Amino acid sequence: MKTRIEKSIESALGSARRSSRSSAPPKLAAALDYAVKPGGARIRPTILTSVALACGDDRPDLTNAAAASLEMIHCASLVHDDMPCFDDADIRRGKPSVHKAFSESLALLVGDTLIVNAFDVLGEAAEKSPARGIKLVRLLSAAAGSPEGICAGQAWESEIKVDLGAYHRAKTGALFVAATCMGAAAAGHDPAPWADLGSRIGQAFQIADDLADALKTEEELGKPVGQDVIHNRPNAVSERGVAGAIAYLEDALSGAISSIPSCPGEAALCELVRHTAEKLTPILPTPAARV
Amino acid sequence: MKTRIEKSIESALGSARRSSRSSAPPKLAAALDYAVKPGGARIRPTILTSVALACGDDRPDLTNAAAASLEMIHCASLVHDDMPCFDDADIRRGKPSVHKAFSESLALLVGDTLIVNAFDVLGEAAEKSPARGIKLVRLLSAAAGSPEGICAGQAWESEIKVDLGAYHRAKTGALFVAATCMGAAAAGHDPAPWADLGSRIGQAFQIADDLADALKTEEELGKPVGQDVIHNRPNAVSERGVAGAIAYLEDALSGAISSIPSCPGEAALCELVRHTAEKLTPILPTPAARV
Repeated sequence: MKTRIEKSIESALGSARRSSRSSAPPKLAAALDYAVKPGGARIRPTILTSVALACGDDRPDLTNAAAASLEMIHCASLVHDDMPCFDDADIRRGKPSVHKAFSESLALLVGDTLIVNAFDVLGEAAEKSPARGIKLVRLLSAAAGSPEGICAGQAWESEIKVDLGAYHRAKTGALFVAATCMGAAAAGHDPAPWADLGSRIGQAFQIADDLADALKTEEELGKPVGQDVIHNRPNAVSERGVAGAIAYLEDALSGAISSIPSCPGEAALCELVRHTAEKLTPILPTPAARV
Repeated sequence: MKTRIEKSIESALGSARRSSRSSAPPKLAAALDYAVKPGGARIRPTILTSVALACGDDRPDLTNAAAASLEMIHCASLVHDDMPCFDDADIRRGKPSVHKAFSESLALLVGDTLIVNAFDVLGEAAEKSPARGIKLVRLLSAAAGSPEGICAGQAWESEIKVDLGAYHRAKTGALFVAATCMGAAAAGHDPAPWADLGSRIGQAFQIADDLADALKTEEELGKPVGQDVIHNRPNAVSERGVAGAIAYLEDALSGAISSIPSCPGEAALCELVRHTAEKLTPILPTPAARV
């Protein structure tokens, strides 16, 4: 699974670096690579591919393109969120953020390029099955844009009066909903019944992220911590306390498992969600600290 | 034509502001409007719509979506190019640029949202004709991204050794090629024979823009002038002198007219290119100054 996803991402990056007629400017090409590799857990494309497999995965090229496109949008959001006008973060995934390693102008362009080329990757793979392709384009654009996607989610941080539900659904939930729905759509299934699973995984992920931001060190996470307090952002720990946030996370994970639609690969998917839960567990405080 | 295009853009903005389930954060919604309206000449969507009409325009909804999506990408590029890490321009279309009127973070998000929602607009209109829709997605992403689109074009400005041809084709030409090709594709025609016309109109536009940047005042243009010299960017006037650049512009326009593919609306299209030439003429120096 990991190899399959990395190969798809590499191929997508390759087509942003070079076409049959021309090559990208060298610094942009290098910065694109730097922004996307080495990745984090690749959790969104993993969920997408797992759902596609559970639905039969009869067009693996389309699944692979969808997985790569979703990860490109995620990486674009990290690059732009790290910029000085947002989090002004110097470190990401344990190395200097893109604007620190290259420049602000290249970071801006890397984000833009990743967004645009995500759609190019989908379009290229969908030429032989355009009906599925257009569904994938719409699922990805809804998750990335406005009013329900990550652009809107990020923009809620500029408001004094925030719709908290809309903020969380858009900022974190949307790409997880896209992960499950795009996995189903790539395999020719109706995406609608898969939205709930994505939404619950997203919720669990957000709570785990809030716990990590509140409790871990910069060294452990490979990025600055305490950002939610600094930027006065809503956070499950400040709202519910550590024990409350952990109980909330456990509820979200068991809710995710029970929301998996009936499908041939249902058992494998339950396994994936459990595996995701295990991945989230190391960032939880030790049982002693949880008291 | 103008009403048709403005209506399509308004509808596209509307779907970025509000869905059946939620509304965009108010500042983002306001900044999206501010970035796109009132527009400039809307030259790219006008060319797109004219080519679609010349090709029969049998799916006007798709033509309208394509025109709006192309203008959204163009506006996104203006918003991001004006930001402090690029041109640091305070003025655009005679009013404060988006980062000045709102904030840098909102300007960044406005650009991102316009890019993403451009694809959403295409995807929504293409649900009933996905094969044309996927072609339009690919034409738009090629024109906007890397290695041949405006992101790559802008990134050439970060290089010491610049491929000038690639720079101009990507930075200015790409969206004009998209205009002619998307117009043909929206009407179900093969886009390939239309690329040359777009490329020549783009070349003419670039030369006219270079002349304006070198010769006009900020008041006349509604944006800062002399930017090419300040940012050490290639410019037809510094390469050929004023008279040379004007001769080059006239050649490009007559080349554009002669490259129009044979089609039912050929005469009307010739008229459009002539009209474009007239629009470009006022920014030329007066005959006395041309000596």
